[in-house]
Amino acid sequence: MFRFLTAGESHGQCLTALVEGIPAGLKINLDEINRQMARRQKGYGRGGRMSIETDKVDILSGVRFGETMGDPITLRVVNKDWENWTDRMSVMGTPTWTKVTAARPGHADYVGIKKYNREDIRDILERSSARETAARVAAGAVARQFLEACGIKIVSHVINIGGVKANTDNIDYANLQPNDSDLNCNDAQAEDKMREAIRDAGQAGDTLGGTFEVVVQNMPIGVGSHIQWDKRLDMQLAGAMMSIQAIKGVEIGDGFDYANHPGSQLHDEMFYNEDKTVYRKTNHAGGIEGGMSNGEPIIVRACMKPIPTLMTPLHSIDIESKQEVLACKERSDVCAVQAASVVGEAMVALAITKAMIDKFGSDCMVDVLQNLQAYNERIKG
Amino acid sequence: MFRFLTAGESHGQCLTALVEGIPAGLKINLDEINRQMARRQKGYGRGGRMSIETDKVDILSGVRFGETMGDPITLRVVNKDWENWTDRMSVMGTPTWTKVTAARPGHADYVGIKKYNREDIRDILERSSARETAARVAAGAVARQFLEACGIKIVSHVINIGGVKANTDNIDYANLQPNDSDLNCNDAQAEDKMREAIRDAGQAGDTLGGTFEVVVQNMPIGVGSHIQWDKRLDMQLAGAMMSIQAIKGVEIGDGFDYANHPGSQLHDEMFYNEDKTVYRKTNHAGGIEGGMSNGEPIIVRACMKPIPTLMTPLHSIDIESKQEVLACKERSDVCAVQAASVVGEAMVALAITKAMIDKFGSDCMVDVLQNLQAYNERIKG
Amino acid sequence: MFRFLTAGESHGQCLTALVEGIPAGLKINLDEINRQMARRQKGYGRGGRMSIETDKVDILSGVRFGETMGDPITLRVVNKDWENWTDRMSVMGTPTWTKVTAARPGHADYVGIKKYNREDIRDILERSSARETAARVAAGAVARQFLEACGIKIVSHVINIGGVKANTDNIDYANLQPNDSDLNCNDAQAEDKMREAIRDAGQAGDTLGGTFEVVVQNMPIGVGSHIQWDKRLDMQLAGAMMSIQAIKGVEIGDGFDYANHPGSQLHDEMFYNEDKTVYRKTNHAGGIEGGMSNGEPIIVRACMKPIPTLMTPLHSIDIESKQEVLACKERSDVCAVQAASVVGEAMVALAITKAMIDKFGSDCMVDVLQNLQAYNERIKG
Amino acid sequence: MFRFLTAGESHGQCLTALVEGIPAGLKINLDEINRQMARRQKGYGRGGRMSIETDKVDILSGVRFGETMGDPITLRVVNKDWENWTDRMSVMGTPTWTKVTAARPGHADYVGIKKYNREDIRDILERSSARETAARVAAGAVARQFLEACGIKIVSHVINIGGVKANTDNIDYANLQPNDSDLNCNDAQAEDKMREAIRDAGQAGDTLGGTFEVVVQNMPIGVGSHIQWDKRLDMQLAGAMMSIQAIKGVEIGDGFDYANHPGSQLHDEMFYNEDKTVYRKTNHAGGIEGGMSNGEPIIVRACMKPIPTLMTPLHSIDIESKQEVLACKERSDVCAVQAASVVGEAMVALAITKAMIDKFGSDCMVDVLQNLQAYNERIKG
Repeated sequence: MFRFLTAGESHGQCLTALVEGIPAGLKINLDEINRQMARRQKGYGRGGRMSIETDKVDILSGVRFGETMGDPITLRVVNKDWENWTDRMSVMGTPTWTKVTAARPGHADYVGIKKYNREDIRDILERSSARETAARVAAGAVARQFLEACGIKIVSHVINIGGVKANTDNIDYANLQPNDSDLNCNDAQAEDKMREAIRDAGQAGDTLGGTFEVVVQNMPIGVGSHIQWDKRLDMQLAGAMMSIQAIKGVEIGDGFDYANHPGSQLHDEMFYNEDKTVYRKTNHAGGIEGGMSNGEPIIVRACMKPIPTLMTPLHSIDIESKQEVLACKERSDVCAVQAASVVGEAMVALAITKAMIDKFGSDCMVDVLQNLQAYNERIKG
Repeated sequence: MFRFLTAGESHGQCLTALVEGIPAGLKINLDEINRQMARRQKGYGRGGRMSIETDKVDILSGVRFGETMGDPITLRVVNKDWENWTDRMSVMGTPTWTKVTAARPGHADYVGIKKYNREDIRDILERSSARETAARVAAGAVARQFLEACGIKIVSHVINIGGVKANTDNIDYANLQPNDSDLNCNDAQAEDKMREAIRDAGQAGDTLGGTFEVVVQNMPIGVGSHIQWDKRLDMQLAGAMMSIQAIKGVEIGDGFDYANHPGSQLHDEMFYNEDKTVYRKTNHAGGIEGGMSNGEPIIVRACMKPIPTLMTPLHSIDIESKQEVLACKERSDVCAVQAASVVGEAMVALAITKAMIDKFGSDCMVDVLQNLQAYNERIKG
Repeated sequence: MFRFLTAGESHGQCLTALVEGIPAGLKINLDEINRQMARRQKGYGRGGRMSIETDKVDILSGVRFGETMGDPITLRVVNKDWENWTDRMSVMGTPTWTKVTAARPGHADYVGIKKYNREDIRDILERSSARETAARVAAGAVARQFLEACGIKIVSHVINIGGVKANTDNIDYANLQPNDSDLNCNDAQAEDKMREAIRDAGQAGDTLGGTFEVVVQNMPIGVGSHIQWDKRLDMQLAGAMMSIQAIKGVEIGDGFDYANHPGSQLHDEMFYNEDKTVYRKTNHAGGIEGGMSNGEPIIVRACMKPIPTLMTPLHSIDIESKQEVLACKERSDVCAVQAASVVGEAMVALAITKAMIDKFGSDCMVDVLQNLQAYNERIKG
Repeated sequence: MFRFLTAGESHGQCLTALVEGIPAGLKINLDEINRQMARRQKGYGRGGRMSIETDKVDILSGVRFGETMGDPITLRVVNKDWENWTDRMSVMGTPTWTKVTAARPGHADYVGIKKYNREDIRDILERSSARETAARVAAGAVARQFLEACGIKIVSHVINIGGVKANTDNIDYANLQPNDSDLNCNDAQAEDKMREAIRDAGQAGDTLGGTFEVVVQNMPIGVGSHIQWDKRLDMQLAGAMMSIQAIKGVEIGDGFDYANHPGSQLHDEMFYNEDKTVYRKTNHAGGIEGGMSNGEPIIVRACMKPIPTLMTPLHSIDIESKQEVLACKERSDVCAVQAASVVGEAMVALAITKAMIDKFGSDCMVDVLQNLQAYNERIKG
């Protein structure tokens, strides 16, 4: 059984991710984990905080001399700015800072303050902040090292920012490569326009959302199951993706476009090649049929809403004075879709890892790989 | 804690749903449950089987003299046609019928047979069949009676079939009423064109998918939570919806359209009315901010792919002979989007029930309603 | 992932067990399931109802032509007496029978009626009744067929009834055989005295409890884990056993006797035999070290309290009149320890099955057995 | 929903506990948490390490200015000795220390090394070590502050060490007070003999186990449920207790002694007092009937085996040389039963907290206390 949890506030001492169920004997590359952390931070259109926090992961448990032991893995991401925030974020003591009372639309602020019976919105926004995704990326970076040991790769790319769309015709999903661009878009021309749109939005005090795709390559067939609603792999992927802050839509394969064409054009017919191996010429299904991976690349698409904290603030309310006010500015990113795509990779990696471990066990890599190979051998042809 | 599971094969003796965690003291209206079952079956474009199976629910446990006792509720939906299928679907004995060996694209057939090491595709398709959704509708019908006792209503409507789109401008989601039409579309003109499209597709041996919305009205604020990835209400709704057979996309509120507009146009600004109660003029967020219900109608949109079993069959494979064949026809619906919308209501009802019970407890209705009312009182204003 | 739930009231239409996660391709022997059902019913000292209900299991899903398909398995145990109880146990309609208002000590009656806000104690006792264990035995009978296919056997024996203790010196736990006696005791002399004690208690209008052991033979080593509190096999076994109605104590191996001797006498020293295979001369640990099976027979001991419904009724209360009364007699078994030992086997089988499937996967028997064999090969020597 | 996990190795950088579901608005007393940590360390008969590690808890998340926010709470317990262990316990790098290859009986060593495919037993013993219980005590200390806010108190006392038994007649469980003795025994005379037994065992190079009781006072009635096997409170308590390292037996109330007396002597008859409130004269059931708390003190008894690491080492095996050897000494406590009783309190606190939160919700203390009070009001009389 695989599970993970995160903890920590945005300006608290640190974020923590606890990852349990990674098999023993996995070599851990800490630089690679930190490379993923850096990817989350570098996007075009991010505000000032990104430069303060160059996130590094400390591994506090579960890894010894570079190898997992089967124990729960604790990952810590220190909030470097915390020392300047102790007046507002001390664990003990008495607050000396004024409370946040202006509830921002599009955030957890208003609902959270009611549900949890708080007086200072900071008690809510510190946890609802997208900073929490740093812990997810750390956890996901471990998960993807497990997946890579199983031969599975995860990449993503951004396909729409603020209405500027990348050309997605003729993408070879099985061989899609990660790129190093600051918007994670594979279409250079579109990416230039996206940058322009972000620049324009920033100058207008506005923000932009967008759409990205996460692709799982070399996925074994038969992961997930049709036998119960909560065992379906698409169900688990949709939940994992929608759990990311600001994500409002999830698609598998053709997604919503399935509504617009007749069935004869949308199903992935099956053929035998000369070796009597099954193949497809299309992948409308995005790699999942009947709640199970079918061997084609898994394609999960998600939409992120524009960051609701605008430099031109939104009409809002003050929970203390009960007056209408303009929402406070907690941060100032213009666009974080590239970052969301990195977080999306992490959540997909975590969901796929869970399903892989349910199927192939979790004691040690030798057993997992043996079980995987024997399975692949059995189902061949 | 609320949980539910279903069991049963499409042509087995019966489907079973086990629903646990419904509080004691809820009045159960069996006619209303059966009315939901009938809704799932009546849509325009459904094939022959729908008339054989007029589903009725038998309650086998958990309800006594019309009231829940707090016990697990067992719901049975008999497969009326089973008696004619005993040669193929006996629990014991020896099969006398020929195996199904042609694996249909778009179904669990091929992957399932590999994963579960079966020789007869019937061992897979009997469970992966959308007939299983009858058990979900039964479970959901109980859940929605619980929700209605809490003042929460769930309705749905179809907004796209095969590219024919309903006019969705100016919908008053808070007051959207259920309709009795055979396509569950509120736009009569569009619905006529949808029927036409279905008729045309049927004549061409083709099938159509579509899009529908499920709306949760009068939702208390603060259900779900921002504090952990798997406690977010949108996460749970996305998973529940994507778990439905043939669903390939899920959106909350504006969904993927968030990508196309700047943030200044997409967030739901907050105002105080004269009583110092918060209100909004828009609901882009679809009733969920920060993973929690915000008091606005919850709007979940889903896309169903066209049924992959076409009268003009798809190119496929025979798992025994290893020859390419045309896929067998297991059934012959042209369009089941209306049915999917009913199933969507059920899954939303079940997900919301789980979240409500996590928040307000599950012993008995008196306590749940007391806790709900005290909470509403506390957060007022 | 393996899970199971039961549903159903003692005098309702039927009990249901839903068992999910049994791999595909397991041959199911229905006669053997029913033999387990019969074992639960035959014990010396059981009252009148046992003869009414000769329980038979109907398999409603998950099995086709004698083999599992990987689907959820639905097991039904009809309550044969239900037809005579419709005045008291109808799902719908109006009750015509008088309510039960005398709350019996030692049962869920009093607490249940408060918690669930009921007026008729029957709403509680129908579910809290030990009749529910029939569904567990049915589920456990499926689980043990899975375990037997993996080479694992489960037996039990009664070692104490009402203070009459069996001689348990020199038991060869690895080869302990099931017996067919009506008290499930392997010590014939003690068993005679147990029967006598039961007879005496019955004549005095009294009841007797007792102690039994469940033994798991040929258990693979390394099932369960030390890495997290809720993954320990002893934790799972203790929970499963304590979940049985009337069970008040659970021990693994030497159990409470560990308190009375120094460590030098209580640990199972390890030796190599000529083949360099590890062996032990003792099994104080009862087959579990560090939360994992260690290859020795697992020994779980449990204590059942005497049935609290006595022919000489206990001092109790009437929840309606608020008067002190003598507790009503719902049934009249004198001793059910033999039945509890059968239920104990079932619960142990279910707990072990869960842990086995977490470790070796659950898709199909071919894969599970392959994974198990490869693991055994790897760890040899 | 309440959950908690621990992570960390015995000589790693730190232990971590992640506790999720504690309601917002609970005042946290850090000194009191640290007092619990100290209690775990001070027992008579503990070896040298206890003086090195005076455990202090750092709260890394979830608490702000002394109050919970509803967020996951991260608790860190630094391993002070870690700096001296980096040659053996570095996260990265190459080991320079010799491997541990002698597998000790009674520990996870041998099984763990096989299951997880390790070559250095340190990879297993670092996590299986009872040091992990420090993280549980930290988590439990938070849980008990929650319970105390609900009026619930948890105390324990040791009743048997190495066969020396305390006098447990006439204990007033409802008013049992914590004591500060170094063996946590309330019977001073017996405690002196226990000390003597520990001294003698230590001099003989031996170890001692024992038995303790954890008592939950002022427990609301109706927590837990009879409706499903895994919702029973006794099931959850038994699992929680048996999950503690070295615990081999768990009893509720009279426990195994129920086997030795007839039912007429063992059930807790009910009476009305003048106010028509129900009361009992006995508490054989240990506060739980039908899987639910019945308002009497909950009494959970557990047995700890003697520590298997003896100064006079046990016969064991070397996994590398395949020779029989004497087991290595990883530590040298003679008796840790007092510490186990503190851990037992923590695990009971965590299990009760989970069940309370399932019943009364977990958003904020104001709501939980309101729901609890309204419930108590409803069921009165």
